[in-house]
Amino acid sequence: MARISGQTVAQHNSRESCWIIVHGKVYDVTEFLDEHPGGSKIILKYAGKDATAEYDPIHPPNAIKDNLPVEKHLGEVEPDTVQKVVVEVTDEEKARQQRMTNRPSLEEILNLHDFESIAKQVMPEKAWAYYSSASDDEITHRENHAAFHRIWFRPRVLRDVTRVDWSTSVLGHKTSMPVYITATALGKLGHPEGEVNLTRAAAKHGVIQMIPTLASCSFDEIVDAAQPGQVQFFQLRVLHQVSVYVNKDREVTKKLVQHAEQRGVKGLFITVDAPQLGRREKDMRMKFEAEDPSVVTKSGSEGVNRSQGAARAISGFIDTSLKWDDLNWFKSITKMPLILKGVQCWEDALMAYDAGVAGIVLSNHGGRQLDFARSGIEILVEVVAHLKEKRGLSFPNEKFQLFVDGGIRRATDVLKAIALGATAVGIGRPFIYAFSAYGSDGVDKALQILHEEFEMNMRLLGAPSLKDVVPAMVDASNLQSHIVAVPGDNLYNNNYESMTYAKLKSKL
Amino acid sequence: MARISGQTVAQHNSRESCWIIVHGKVYDVTEFLDEHPGGSKIILKYAGKDATAEYDPIHPPNAIKDNLPVEKHLGEVEPDTVQKVVVEVTDEEKARQQRMTNRPSLEEILNLHDFESIAKQVMPEKAWAYYSSASDDEITHRENHAAFHRIWFRPRVLRDVTRVDWSTSVLGHKTSMPVYITATALGKLGHPEGEVNLTRAAAKHGVIQMIPTLASCSFDEIVDAAQPGQVQFFQLRVLHQVSVYVNKDREVTKKLVQHAEQRGVKGLFITVDAPQLGRREKDMRMKFEAEDPSVVTKSGSEGVNRSQGAARAISGFIDTSLKWDDLNWFKSITKMPLILKGVQCWEDALMAYDAGVAGIVLSNHGGRQLDFARSGIEILVEVVAHLKEKRGLSFPNEKFQLFVDGGIRRATDVLKAIALGATAVGIGRPFIYAFSAYGSDGVDKALQILHEEFEMNMRLLGAPSLKDVVPAMVDASNLQSHIVAVPGDNLYNNNYESMTYAKLKSKL
Amino acid sequence: MARISGQTVAQHNSRESCWIIVHGKVYDVTEFLDEHPGGSKIILKYAGKDATAEYDPIHPPNAIKDNLPVEKHLGEVEPDTVQKVVVEVTDEEKARQQRMTNRPSLEEILNLHDFESIAKQVMPEKAWAYYSSASDDEITHRENHAAFHRIWFRPRVLRDVTRVDWSTSVLGHKTSMPVYITATALGKLGHPEGEVNLTRAAAKHGVIQMIPTLASCSFDEIVDAAQPGQVQFFQLRVLHQVSVYVNKDREVTKKLVQHAEQRGVKGLFITVDAPQLGRREKDMRMKFEAEDPSVVTKSGSEGVNRSQGAARAISGFIDTSLKWDDLNWFKSITKMPLILKGVQCWEDALMAYDAGVAGIVLSNHGGRQLDFARSGIEILVEVVAHLKEKRGLSFPNEKFQLFVDGGIRRATDVLKAIALGATAVGIGRPFIYAFSAYGSDGVDKALQILHEEFEMNMRLLGAPSLKDVVPAMVDASNLQSHIVAVPGDNLYNNNYESMTYAKLKSKL
Amino acid sequence: MARISGQTVAQHNSRESCWIIVHGKVYDVTEFLDEHPGGSKIILKYAGKDATAEYDPIHPPNAIKDNLPVEKHLGEVEPDTVQKVVVEVTDEEKARQQRMTNRPSLEEILNLHDFESIAKQVMPEKAWAYYSSASDDEITHRENHAAFHRIWFRPRVLRDVTRVDWSTSVLGHKTSMPVYITATALGKLGHPEGEVNLTRAAAKHGVIQMIPTLASCSFDEIVDAAQPGQVQFFQLRVLHQVSVYVNKDREVTKKLVQHAEQRGVKGLFITVDAPQLGRREKDMRMKFEAEDPSVVTKSGSEGVNRSQGAARAISGFIDTSLKWDDLNWFKSITKMPLILKGVQCWEDALMAYDAGVAGIVLSNHGGRQLDFARSGIEILVEVVAHLKEKRGLSFPNEKFQLFVDGGIRRATDVLKAIALGATAVGIGRPFIYAFSAYGSDGVDKALQILHEEFEMNMRLLGAPSLKDVVPAMVDASNLQSHIVAVPGDNLYNNNYESMTYAKLKSKL
Repeated sequence: MARISGQTVAQHNSRESCWIIVHGKVYDVTEFLDEHPGGSKIILKYAGKDATAEYDPIHPPNAIKDNLPVEKHLGEVEPDTVQKVVVEVTDEEKARQQRMTNRPSLEEILNLHDFESIAKQVMPEKAWAYYSSASDDEITHRENHAAFHRIWFRPRVLRDVTRVDWSTSVLGHKTSMPVYITATALGKLGHPEGEVNLTRAAAKHGVIQMIPTLASCSFDEIVDAAQPGQVQFFQLRVLHQVSVYVNKDREVTKKLVQHAEQRGVKGLFITVDAPQLGRREKDMRMKFEAEDPSVVTKSGSEGVNRSQGAARAISGFIDTSLKWDDLNWFKSITKMPLILKGVQCWEDALMAYDAGVAGIVLSNHGGRQLDFARSGIEILVEVVAHLKEKRGLSFPNEKFQLFVDGGIRRATDVLKAIALGATAVGIGRPFIYAFSAYGSDGVDKALQILHEEFEMNMRLLGAPSLKDVVPAMVDASNLQSHIVAVPGDNLYNNNYESMTYAKLKSKL
Repeated sequence: MARISGQTVAQHNSRESCWIIVHGKVYDVTEFLDEHPGGSKIILKYAGKDATAEYDPIHPPNAIKDNLPVEKHLGEVEPDTVQKVVVEVTDEEKARQQRMTNRPSLEEILNLHDFESIAKQVMPEKAWAYYSSASDDEITHRENHAAFHRIWFRPRVLRDVTRVDWSTSVLGHKTSMPVYITATALGKLGHPEGEVNLTRAAAKHGVIQMIPTLASCSFDEIVDAAQPGQVQFFQLRVLHQVSVYVNKDREVTKKLVQHAEQRGVKGLFITVDAPQLGRREKDMRMKFEAEDPSVVTKSGSEGVNRSQGAARAISGFIDTSLKWDDLNWFKSITKMPLILKGVQCWEDALMAYDAGVAGIVLSNHGGRQLDFARSGIEILVEVVAHLKEKRGLSFPNEKFQLFVDGGIRRATDVLKAIALGATAVGIGRPFIYAFSAYGSDGVDKALQILHEEFEMNMRLLGAPSLKDVVPAMVDASNLQSHIVAVPGDNLYNNNYESMTYAKLKSKL
Repeated sequence: MARISGQTVAQHNSRESCWIIVHGKVYDVTEFLDEHPGGSKIILKYAGKDATAEYDPIHPPNAIKDNLPVEKHLGEVEPDTVQKVVVEVTDEEKARQQRMTNRPSLEEILNLHDFESIAKQVMPEKAWAYYSSASDDEITHRENHAAFHRIWFRPRVLRDVTRVDWSTSVLGHKTSMPVYITATALGKLGHPEGEVNLTRAAAKHGVIQMIPTLASCSFDEIVDAAQPGQVQFFQLRVLHQVSVYVNKDREVTKKLVQHAEQRGVKGLFITVDAPQLGRREKDMRMKFEAEDPSVVTKSGSEGVNRSQGAARAISGFIDTSLKWDDLNWFKSITKMPLILKGVQCWEDALMAYDAGVAGIVLSNHGGRQLDFARSGIEILVEVVAHLKEKRGLSFPNEKFQLFVDGGIRRATDVLKAIALGATAVGIGRPFIYAFSAYGSDGVDKALQILHEEFEMNMRLLGAPSLKDVVPAMVDASNLQSHIVAVPGDNLYNNNYESMTYAKLKSKL
Repeated sequence: MARISGQTVAQHNSRESCWIIVHGKVYDVTEFLDEHPGGSKIILKYAGKDATAEYDPIHPPNAIKDNLPVEKHLGEVEPDTVQKVVVEVTDEEKARQQRMTNRPSLEEILNLHDFESIAKQVMPEKAWAYYSSASDDEITHRENHAAFHRIWFRPRVLRDVTRVDWSTSVLGHKTSMPVYITATALGKLGHPEGEVNLTRAAAKHGVIQMIPTLASCSFDEIVDAAQPGQVQFFQLRVLHQVSVYVNKDREVTKKLVQHAEQRGVKGLFITVDAPQLGRREKDMRMKFEAEDPSVVTKSGSEGVNRSQGAARAISGFIDTSLKWDDLNWFKSITKMPLILKGVQCWEDALMAYDAGVAGIVLSNHGGRQLDFARSGIEILVEVVAHLKEKRGLSFPNEKFQLFVDGGIRRATDVLKAIALGATAVGIGRPFIYAFSAYGSDGVDKALQILHEEFEMNMRLLGAPSLKDVVPAMVDASNLQSHIVAVPGDNLYNNNYESMTYAKLKSKL
């Protein structure tokens, strides 16, 4: 393989001829510029330079190698000839690193909220913006959590709860709790080891990890990190293609799926709620603010802005035509059970059941897609009611399993979903925040906290096993109340002078 | 025409003899003082002086010429003889102009809220007070937006949404989106080119503009600014007269309507919710604060205060007697389709249908009229239900179209209205804020954002066209919940000490 | 009459012999000390001194003269021999007087809220505490206003509203608006002329004033201040006695009532919701804070604290035994129509109707009595429904009139009550605040504002007269929703980072 | 008994040999270290030292003597040979003591909230954390109070309320009000005399005290402090054992119960809602923050953290197997009436009734156990309805009494419970706060305030006795509304500019 000097690469630093270095290899991406899902701008920033640091958290290791025609792989760069990209450590970054040093010990972390609070302070701003953002006004994002607060418990007493057992099985596989780690993209934004942090902690606690299509680690890295016998699922996002150089048919998808099956993956979760990525404005705004401030004020409709946050960078080629008929094709290429991720009303749940899939995830994609989509927990109630009425099903049901994700922070949230008919729930962001702040140990601690909460709350519910967590244990009658208070009468309310307490005497 | 020196004009500076200069012409307004809808005070402030700067944003160019008897048109003022009204640039105004310079680029504007946020900072205070204010406690104003938040989506999945189409037709005319630019008065308060900013952007995006009776630009200016084939509607506010010198019958109205038809206007939207203008206290307070501080404290009921904000200035002669019978008269003077703007209950919707109009706008005038009037979107639901029951109609309906305005900020808001039976919705303030901050480019950008939001949200709804946006796609069951929380128990709540997170270690 | 020197009076300055001077007369109140409803402490503070300034706002002028046995009226004090009670003007008081000077002109007052806002700043703290306070946690006090915000309008359009008329009649007497000035005690706390301020403004606007039993002005002063033909009602609080020296039977009450009738009063409103005064803690706390700070920390149950605010000072001898049977006695002593003030459920409304009274006021005493009592407007709906069902009545009803008070600040509030069946409503605090800040002119302005609001809102409702304000014009379906939000999830909510707008560029 | 020098003790200061001094006695606790419910860490902190100050508020006086085998009782320490544990008075503690000095007098305390406000400022942080904390997000803790605010009154008028009587009887025993002092643990954390403060005030006011199993004072101390004839109940928390040296059967429980009966206790309240203690994170966080800051950041799942607040320290050996069958055993060992404390749904209430117990307490343990458990007052309504339907019972019922605790702060709260069928209610935290701030006098004052509130509110309700407080006096129709508002639209709401009042003129 040819060896090229850094100086030579440095000359190809323009739109006319654009070379970049990634992991010591030189690539000619001139023709690829306009096809890059993340836009040409970000590539041009590294034209003639080493782009590895920017490339890594956003792409799996082989993305460029696999997708760029072999004639554009120019060879290896000569070591020590590349001019170091001097990354200036800003004062802001120094302060962040100081905060990282000051993290509290894991013993002080008492609940999943704590991880988010710490992560917000110690993560790079860009990572926080990508993970924490959601679509439009982020109403659905927050409703996901709020909906659980409209469900209340009806616990039972005087039952022997010396032994309580919250283990269960998902798609036939044992799990130590009715929780799986759901797929979330771009793990390396938060921690250099990315999704592998999740794999390790999942192994330790006997819970199932769902591997995302858009992971920062490669699929094989994540599978390789698993322990023997450790169960993993695969979340599939159907893309037209990863690169324009590949045929537009679904060969890539087929390869991905069959490779996953070969590697022992136990379930295929097809994302159906994201034919286009949501507009996540916090992420977009973050991205924009980092851009060159010399951009002129005037833009109008001509100026197409490609720099719209990390989310949009990876979404250029989502297949918008995925439809019910395609499920037969999936059945023809794999024996893995199929699960639809992102079903949001009973009508589609019924179609999924009739289509013979193994289950569905009632989910709105963490509030990152359609704003004012309802929470998974709310949809669960209507799905259970209508599938009973239309098909005579009862839940939880081995043959057609219901999952919920979105907004879960406490074991009580999980137990509410179980009581209402879910087999298990997915948790995403809290684990990301856990490893962003503490690596794999953080995820480990998060799972341990959930175990403690399950033990306590099942005792307090009077439920020795998950089978005992029945619908009569919850009051969900307010679940569909989407209340917005009448706007306040500020003149009246501001005139009202709040009452006060008795006061300490002031010192003389 | 006579030429008069500035010095001569300057001598007529009292209630006894009051001349003013507007656009280089001298007018004797002595007898008109007490008939001026905006009160005599504001005219007397310019007695003997050039009033153009004050006159322009509040009146169409020919208002004074058309309405003052010809013998009061005294002639042209001699140039360079008029003493310049030295407008002192206050520190506050300088700060505002600096903020104007610091506007972010249009690329940084991500949603319609952004325009309002920027406009609030860069507009003259008076303009902001006029546009942003609403009646009484502004409950309805805010409810207009809040009501949309009580409606949630039930999206469908696995539908081919490669192509999504949100174009439609309104009263038989194509529009690129189910949105029209609704009529709002006094556009020049926000931007020197006033309503013409809207015309230009509307042309570019293929949406329909509704021309207001009380525009700052003249009707013809706005029509002239349109592209060939561009569709415009006319909003009619029926006034007794623009001046006391005209007969009290409806000749002026007839002329306005027939002129509009002649100029190619495609629909006549008759305002029916404003027989008197609402008391918009923010606007009134703003106006008052600008007045002479020497006004004595005592007033009692004798002191009639005419200086009650821009809104009241233009509303002196609204026709309070407009009634159902008058619709026949309108039919006799024009062939344009008639639409009633401001219907607020199903009973009136039914009367409108029976009266044979082409449609109705369910609207409360942007919360600027009756406070505690319900939002258009809430009224829509009852109208659709009752017109189905009473007349067997289904919606959207070509023969009797339903429109909604008020509180719309996102394409999701629009799609909720479409799902519930509206043909299209009107948006007002956001476009005003857009041009106040960025001129025509701002409106262009606002429409572009809506296009982007429509594309994304229709994909996420699983609706390739507006026909697919059906009632089952929304849950509006909480729409009529006008909830006001029980007043807080401040003693209890203030005693409650909020929980906290794990904390970073403090530095040594 | 004997003349006594100030020096002599000054020697009787103890519990053993306690003389005080009021309006130049000397009284021996030694034996009265323990019978004083306001406690002995406040009297002892003025033992041997001139108590007029403290006495005046709390008592009608002749209270002491009428109630103390004639042998305790010692005579006149010799002028210029009384040592002036030097009232030190505190810095706080000076600041208050400065604020009084800086009041905005009445032209700047746009609504009733404004009066409260100004009054709060310019009134003596003690007066504010007395007027503004309510019982327990003041939940009912605020609910009174909030309840109106759960009622929304269903206005009608295209009706001729050139002439709108909001006059009506109450108990057969004309009033220019469906509002009367309800009874509130101790008017001189807020303004030296007390309740007479209300009388004058009521005359000017043709509205009815209800004279309180516990006015600061004497009953006759208030009646004397009325114009010929001006209608006044009398609010009766039935006391055991004003003094211990009077027999415990109801002679005093009888005299009061018959005197009122003689003086031309047109209706007797008997307070039935206050057999004991509510604990108004703001008032109590205010009072306490003004006390001697040397009071020891320990008290326990022995220490009986009489200094519990102005409210308790006047309530010592309320008749707790008033009952339905007593209505016959009232009918036997007067021909004035009887109205029960403070009815709070349909069961009592029915009893009142069956007892033959002329009407009832649905009221909770301005939130000053039972906390968590419902608002008058909410009670109105159940009363109208049940009296229709049980007795076939429709409302408004000439024979049995329904009134509502509490929380009214806008003409829209009044119109909601009218639509739901009330004949008129009472307004209290806003008028007190108006005269406390601006005297009679303030009340005048307040009534003028209401007139303006009535005119506008009846036009916007499409109601030319009060008869046209019908139940179908309001949606009161949420009126009984006493919603308290589920306590917030502070950990989750505080982690949520609010979205932000596009920002102005910061200056270089 | 042997006498041991302090120097000798001081040598046994390690895990290998650990002696401690308590109340002048030396104990060898080496083998007990790992069995200590509160963990070994806290004991090792005092290894070789005097642990009395730490021991006292957490344990009854004889806990160590009774539970440690006699051969570990080493003897008495020689006086003056023990090195004083110098407790450094921190600046924070000095500030707290100063605040204690500045407490307002009891006369200034107007309601139960005041006690909490003062206690929060004057209590040691650790005590505040223990008393005020509740489980998980403390939603249930606050809901307990909030639920009462969804119940409104329907008072009656014109009833003779000269004499009002709020005394009643509980399990056949007279009480001056329908309130008992419920069991709360570790009273000495707040005040050196602990639970005895409650005993004294209860005697004075004729109310019943429930003695907690986990009191700081010994059971006998509390009984001894009672007046002749004073009624006390006993709250039983069934533990496996107090020490590992005792057999695992229920001999200890039997002894406790029979001893209580012997001492004259009149009712046995068996706690059934706490098979495991809730995670009270405020308490856990407080505890952690006090620990050695050198604890390493890494912990993972291996590090078992025993130092989780005062609550966990006392809960190591709760019997998790207590069940319905055990009730027969209780009946066999005592004749005291049995009451189940912590029933939370009608199904268990029915089982309790069928099991023949004398009553149940509808309670969620002050929000300290299962979060999102419903409030007792809400459960009361369903219990009353279902027991009427299933067993024909009416309430209040002498044979099967219903009690409610949690969130009660006002007599109005109590009266709501009475109206809905409760016999009496339990109040806990407010009395703790009262004695923490003011000792026994504080509890006395708290009870006195309740008496005043009962008198006033029964008058205002029109209820001369508790029998007259009937269901029709309340509107509880919103009680089951667990409303969570839709998350706010921050972009819209922050753009909205609140209205303002007329303003005072600013000074020149």
